[in-house]
Amino acid sequence: MRPTAFLVVTAASMASIAAYTAHAAGQTDGKPAPIFVTQIPPGYRDFTLISVAHEEGKLNSLGAVLGNDVAVKAYRGGTLPCPDGTIIAALHYTHSPPEENDRIFGQAQSFVPGSPTNIQFMVKDSQKYAATGGWGFGHFGPDGKPGAEALLKTCFPCHAREKARNLVFTHYAP
Amino acid sequence: MRPTAFLVVTAASMASIAAYTAHAAGQTDGKPAPIFVTQIPPGYRDFTLISVAHEEGKLNSLGAVLGNDVAVKAYRGGTLPCPDGTIIAALHYTHSPPEENDRIFGQAQSFVPGSPTNIQFMVKDSQKYAATGGWGFGHFGPDGKPGAEALLKTCFPCHAREKARNLVFTHYAP
Repeated sequence: MRPTAFLVVTAASMASIAAYTAHAAGQTDGKPAPIFVTQIPPGYRDFTLISVAHEEGKLNSLGAVLGNDVAVKAYRGGTLPCPDGTIIAALHYTHSPPEENDRIFGQAQSFVPGSPTNIQFMVKDSQKYAATGGWGFGHFGPDGKPGAEALLKTCFPCHAREKARNLVFTHYAP
Repeated sequence: MRPTAFLVVTAASMASIAAYTAHAAGQTDGKPAPIFVTQIPPGYRDFTLISVAHEEGKLNSLGAVLGNDVAVKAYRGGTLPCPDGTIIAALHYTHSPPEENDRIFGQAQSFVPGSPTNIQFMVKDSQKYAATGGWGFGHFGPDGKPGAEALLKTCFPCHAREKARNLVFTHYAP
């Protein structure tokens, strides 16, 4: 099986990415077109598992990637580009060794979700998010507040590298 | 948040566990009572996310823990003991660094599910699995074949250590 790639959170952390200009490019009638997801999609915690991910380094993240019914149907059917209505949610936590597991094992070897760090979303709406490849990108802290615009501007340029998979890095885990 | 503990797979790998005698103890009318889950519960891949887990060491495992509706309702409501009908599924894969992520990052820091290694289940039926705390334990390889009895016999004695949480190690990730 081809390994699942997952870079949503990391895309946001890449400092070397060129400035993102779609915000200006997406302006219509003097009003900027929406490019970011500003509301947490309701019911996302009940979405279906797409995959899981572990990021080492500064992120030290353990996460799950979930999809709504449209997303999961597209994944399972190999549908590309992802249809409008697709929502992909990435739930991130610290990568934490629980003491209770260490006691059982006699050593630290087990890692589980610690504190939630953020939830990130990709929402497909080819009209609304035309300026960013049809995808709206969202980032919300554990308090539910959206991430800063400077952070969100880093999502699209990185995801745009995955043209062959309609800007989606995460593969489906069987 | 309290870290989520997850030991299903690891329980099966602990060599030091005392011999498990419930198989004999559960005999009724000359027929051994069932103590293992012998069929993969249908629809488990659509169950709801409970948590994720990363095991280092020999296991080198990245996994997801899913629950059916009964399980998730019990988790979210804090219901203990888990009601009959609860099914918990642990999907395990190798912990793999995908080359395509390394190219984006410039280094190996991202880990995703590689090949599936096994799927494990806990099924609550306080009558059927009375000899093992009301839980049936199951283990299936990527080919769908059940694990050896010697392996399955290691599940209950380890899970029995978690009496306060009705033998379930995994916590719910918010």
